[in-house]
Order: sequence, then structure tokens, then C-alpha cells
Amino acid sequence: MPPMALALHDEGETTSELTSHGIEHNLPTASQPSIAELDASRLITTLTTQNRSVPKLGSKEIASQKIATDHMITARWTVESGWDAPELRPYGPLSLMPTASCLHYATECFEGMKLYRGFDGKLRLFRPELNCMRMLKSTTRIALPAFNPDELLKLVAKLCATDGAKWLPKERKGHFLYIRPTMIATDSALGVERPKEALLYVMLVFFPPMDNAARGIKLLASQDDMVRAWPGGFGYAKVGANYGPSLVAQGEARRMGYDQILWLFGPEGWVTEAGASNFFVVWRTKEGKLQLITSDLDEKIVLDGITRKSVLQLAAARLVPGYEGLEPLEIVERKFTMREVEEAIEEGRLVEAFASGTAWFIGAIGQVHFRGKDLKIPMGKKEGEMGAYTTLIKGWLRGIMWGEEEMKTHEWGFVVDEE
Amino acid sequence: MPPMALALHDEGETTSELTSHGIEHNLPTASQPSIAELDASRLITTLTTQNRSVPKLGSKEIASQKIATDHMITARWTVESGWDAPELRPYGPLSLMPTASCLHYATECFEGMKLYRGFDGKLRLFRPELNCMRMLKSTTRIALPAFNPDELLKLVAKLCATDGAKWLPKERKGHFLYIRPTMIATDSALGVERPKEALLYVMLVFFPPMDNAARGIKLLASQDDMVRAWPGGFGYAKVGANYGPSLVAQGEARRMGYDQILWLFGPEGWVTEAGASNFFVVWRTKEGKLQLITSDLDEKIVLDGITRKSVLQLAAARLVPGYEGLEPLEIVERKFTMREVEEAIEEGRLVEAFASGTAWFIGAIGQVHFRGKDLKIPMGKKEGEMGAYTTLIKGWLRGIMWGEEEMKTHEWGFVVDEE
Repeated sequence: MPPMALALHDEGETTSELTSHGIEHNLPTASQPSIAELDASRLITTLTTQNRSVPKLGSKEIASQKIATDHMITARWTVESGWDAPELRPYGPLSLMPTASCLHYATECFEGMKLYRGFDGKLRLFRPELNCMRMLKSTTRIALPAFNPDELLKLVAKLCATDGAKWLPKERKGHFLYIRPTMIATDSALGVERPKEALLYVMLVFFPPMDNAARGIKLLASQDDMVRAWPGGFGYAKVGANYGPSLVAQGEARRMGYDQILWLFGPEGWVTEAGASNFFVVWRTKEGKLQLITSDLDEKIVLDGITRKSVLQLAAARLVPGYEGLEPLEIVERKFTMREVEEAIEEGRLVEAFASGTAWFIGAIGQVHFRGKDLKIPMGKKEGEMGAYTTLIKGWLRGIMWGEEEMKTHEWGFVVDEE
Repeated sequence: MPPMALALHDEGETTSELTSHGIEHNLPTASQPSIAELDASRLITTLTTQNRSVPKLGSKEIASQKIATDHMITARWTVESGWDAPELRPYGPLSLMPTASCLHYATECFEGMKLYRGFDGKLRLFRPELNCMRMLKSTTRIALPAFNPDELLKLVAKLCATDGAKWLPKERKGHFLYIRPTMIATDSALGVERPKEALLYVMLVFFPPMDNAARGIKLLASQDDMVRAWPGGFGYAKVGANYGPSLVAQGEARRMGYDQILWLFGPEGWVTEAGASNFFVVWRTKEGKLQLITSDLDEKIVLDGITRKSVLQLAAARLVPGYEGLEPLEIVERKFTMREVEEAIEEGRLVEAFASGTAWFIGAIGQVHFRGKDLKIPMGKKEGEMGAYTTLIKGWLRGIMWGEEEMKTHEWGFVVDEE
């Protein structure tokens, strides 16, 4: 296998956005010298004295998505003094006044990451600096305070280093814990205005393995009366306000036997996201070109997924030139409609489709219900197999995340030194 | 003054929406006989033993919007057993797991009402049954549980009856407490799905008097890059997800010296809401007709405000036929653009404009900044006076709310029997 030449140009774009107008307003300025920045080196550690046991693999506790590890990170912010010293402390309930801003005005955002126990025994994060930068974009959009993303990464790594050895032990190779950095406005004032107090916290939670059904994921295309995001809105940010309002449609989809909503936008039916994941299609154009296509991010209605970005970069490095005898393909980021997908299916041009995201990872799509029809999406040659491109991409990412073979030292894997 | 003949036809519309498809899914069905409904008659009362003092009028405590009265109402719901017996108990902090759904996915909604200490000494609510019905619409949109709105009203009235005498005493005639019914999803599971546990709570909070500046409210028209709501979204519901995402634009407006954002929609620049209030204009058409105009509710991007509804009903009953020598006017609910407003100003056809809502009540608009220009909106004849129609409507509503003169027994005033 050739060494990977990654297209990193879009990283620069992310960075430039992070110094944009909106964010600058939230950062301490020279005229406010007493306002403290988030500083991981000031961490105050209070270890638990409880002896909690690690849930068994396959247990109900793990399936519940309710069980966290021994500790959490917290850091309090106020508009007057900035960031207090962060704390690593026993995991437990938060006390909030009933008037707290986050309970009324959705002044809250989060990130989703995973801690992987590698096949080589090491603990790894996957491109965590990108999550920390996106967290800053989200806090900025929802009027929560700014912080240095490098400091958040240090805090996340510290929590993983502290709890990893016990809660994701070496014998659980190939497993993971879900990492949830969260920021909430804790002002106990009911006025509708920019928060003056906030709490950042990070916890490690057990999630069940995200193995997708052999039939592939079944999606229900959204109707006009239920729109996830819009231009000038906040679809690109991981703010709570994107999730609660999607649950009615999602619940309806599940009752009808589908796994998730495929979110379309506008009268043209642009394909945007599948559930809370990005959506990819491999198809052949009418002119005969093989393409990997996904929605662009231009109107900021689609999440700038880190798995999405990684898929595009891996595909650019490995699939565009043609991989081990596979036909070369083009990568296209543009708006495309569900009708185009339908037509490709009807004309036998659709090769495969998959969803990408941290929680779901890479999931092959087996079916989309659109305008009264169940459209079957091709998967692998044998029943229950994923398509060739989905399989390759998922395998490469898994290799990096869990440190398999030549991927052990891949630059996207961030090794956590355990304590 | 003639007796009021109110146009009540739109009440029926509200009721029919409340039995729609979406809501039925959430209600207990015959096949789930063990699921309890919200039942105010099961209230469990635990009175406070603390001796907290009532903040002074004009104090910082009142301005903070953080101070609640002695008690709150709480009621817990689970998908398995429905509504627990509600409780009236000492006001105090809530304990939530860091994984609670409402802290991540904005699974939360609320209502805003006021408790008025009348000039006749009585405590009143204003059309509270409409707030309770709208709360049900909001919970339905955000995948929170259904309940009988009559039971919520009984709980609100009970809290007001318990704390009213002490916290809004008879000598505070013409003052109010703000009532905040809230529902949050309390599931401590991180899965993105319909909540299985929720908490309804109601509290009474001190708000400063909402007297608008003599110059009138100054509004900054929104830009295309910041859109409050969208067809198929949730702009019509009082869900948290409408508020947090508006705070960046609102903060920017305040820094620029404006009070609130005037939310426009679409490339045409339809006028939708002012801050979190409805927006009304009185203008003369090019054909010479005098009109009171406000955005319709058809696309569900505008909140179905209770003050809005009341303004329309009062205007229909009193202003349409011509009030005490004033020229008769027409009422129009339709989409209208900011360009139409600008043109009316340029041509001297704009009579006055005001915002309506529970928190702001009726506030005269003095200025709107639109596409680089500060447009002056006419107000009263003397500097600092409201326009004639704004003054009349505000006076009628105040009369009903605070039981003035012949309004003492108005059907929109709900008298609370104090304990």
C-alpha cells in the first residue's frame, strides 16, 4: 500500500473561520486583563472514593447509554472573571436552578468523540483537535463563551488517561467509550440574553457497539412539513437546538420501521443528512463517470463531520487514483437531489450509499423511502455484505482508530498515555 | 362604551390543532390503562419552612430576573407510568445527571404568563387557558409528553393562590409576577431519541416593570445570514431551540444600540417577529385604506401570541367599526415585507407600529434599521408619546389585566382566589 498523501487544504479553512468576527467578540480582549482563559494546567484533581464496577460487555447497563466512568471534567465560566480552574472530580449529578438558561433557551452545545482501545493495546482518540475546534464553532453560534481548543483537548486527554485503564481495559481491544464534551449556560436569570455564566464538562459514557443491520440502514426521506436546518440557521453546529426538534420525525420513522430520517431540504429535495450523520453516494453519472458524492457545506445547513472530512481525504488519497485494481473515481461535493438518487437507482447507475458519523461510524444504506416508494440501494455482491467502497473506507478508518497493522502510527490517531 | 363582541372563531382552530395526529400519539390510549394522566387533584403539598423576604420594588434583586417565590410546582413523567402526582414544594435547585437529555438535545419548552395584582386588589391571570393549550403544542413539537391543559391551569392557579398574598401583596397594585411553566426531558441516557422521562415545573419569578423607552423601541432588521425560523421548523412553538440561536444576533443588536432584532424571512424580506414579540403596523394603503396589519401564522414560523390574538380581537370589536370618532380601520393578517413598510414611511402612509408579547406587553416602535438606513417610525403627536392606536390597545389590555373600571369582570381576566 502506498503512503497516504492527504489533502489537508480544508484544515486551513476551518482555522480561518475560527478567527472570524463572531468568535472574536467572545474572546477576552486586552482591555479586560482580569478575564482568565481556559487553562488545563490549572486542573484541580479530586479522585473518587467510591468503588464502582465496570459494566460487562453486552450488558443492559451498556445498552442504556446512561453509565459514565468514575470521573468527569468540569470548568465554570463567568462573564466577569472568565474561566475558573478546571476540575477533574467524581462523576455525579449537576445542581441547576430551575431558572437556568440552558433549561429554557437551549443555550447548550456538545461534541461527540470516542476513546478507542486499540488492537495493539493502546488508547487512542481520532483527530480530537477537530472536535475541539468544532466545539468552539458551536459555542460561538449559541452565544456561549470561547476557549482555546488546545486546552479542551488536554482536558479530554487527561480524563481518558485517568479512567481509561479501569473502564476500557486492555482486554477490551476493539471496544470504545463515547466522549461527550458539553457546554451549558447556567445563568439563573430568565432574561432572554447572552449567558453570563456557563459550565463546560466532559464525561465518558458506555455506548453499545454500533453494528448496523446486515440489511443496511433503512431511511425515511423527510417531508416538507419537517425541516431540520435552513440557510442562516445553525445546522452546521452541534447545538442542542438541532436535535430535540428532529425527534418527532425520528420517532415517526422508527414506528414505521425505518432507522432514521434522510433529511431533504427545499422544494428541490436536496439531500443533506441521514439522521445525525453525513450521507455519501457512489454512483455512475449518465456520462459514465464514477463519483463519490456528498452534500457541500456552503449553506451551513450540513454538519462539517469529522468522519465526513476523513472519508473525503482518504478517498482523495486512495480511491481517486484507483485502488488495487478498482476503477478510479471522482470526488464531488455539491448539492444533489433525492430525485437524482432515484433516477440513478432506476437506471442502474447507483453503486452504493453510506452514512458517516462518530456514533454510527460508517453504515451501509440498504433502503430509502421517498415519495411513497421504497428504493432499494445496492450493497455488496452477497446478501448482507456492504459495498466495496463502503467496506474499504470503513476498514481504513477502523485501522487508524484501533491501531491496526500499518495504521498504528497514523497521524490521525492520537495516543493517550494512561496513568 | 359598547359591550365587546369578540371574534372568537380562531379559538376553534386552536382546539382542532390540539387533537391532531401528532398529539394523539403522545396521549395515553385505551390499550395503556396504567398510564396516569396529569391530575391536579392529586397534588401533594409541602410548604417551606424558610422565612425568605420579598424583594423591594425597584431593587437589584427584581432587576436580576433570578428571584422566585417560596414554592414551585413539579410533576414527573415517565413513559412507563405517565404522570406522577404533582407536588407543590419549596422552590430550589434541580438535580440532573450530566447526561440529561435537556442539557444536550434541547428537549425543553416553556410558557410565559403573568400574575397581576389588580387595582381592585384582586389577583388575575390573563387568558391562561390559551397559554396552557400552547404549552401542549410546544411539548408535542419537541417530543415531550402530552397532558390535559386544564390540569396545568389548575396547578398554575394553585401556585399563584399559595404565594400571591405574600409575594405580590395587595399594596403592590399594578405590579405583576412572571409565571414560567417549563417542561424538560430528564432522561439520563445520551441516545438521540424521544424522551422517556420528563419534568414539568412552574415557578413565579420577579421581573422588572417592562416600561419602554419614551423614544420607542429601536429595532435592527435581521440579515440573511441569521434566520430565526423556517417553514417546517418550529418558530410557532415556545421551544428552547428558538431562543438560544437568536442570542448572537440579539447581542450584536444591543452592542449597536438597538433593543431587539426585527426578524425578516426570505429573499423578499417578510416581516415576522420583533425580538420574541409579534409585530404590528398601522398604515394607510396607497388606495387610502387604514389598516392594522400583522404577519399571518400560515407557515408556522411566527408565534401564535396570546397578546397578538387579543390585540386582533379587541381591534375587530372596537377599532373596525370606528372608535369614539376615530376613523374605522381594516384588520389584515398576511405576509408583508420590510420594503412595504419602508415605502409607507417614505410616502407618509405609516401611522404607527408596535410589538406585542407577554414580557414586553405593548411597546411602541420608534425606529427600524433596515439595509443601512435608520427608518423613523411615527409615534404620538407629542415627543415620547405612543401613537393613538397603540395607546388605546395598551389601555384596554391593561384594564383587563389589572381589573380597571368596567374591565373588572372581563371574561379574559381569570381571578385567582388567594389562600
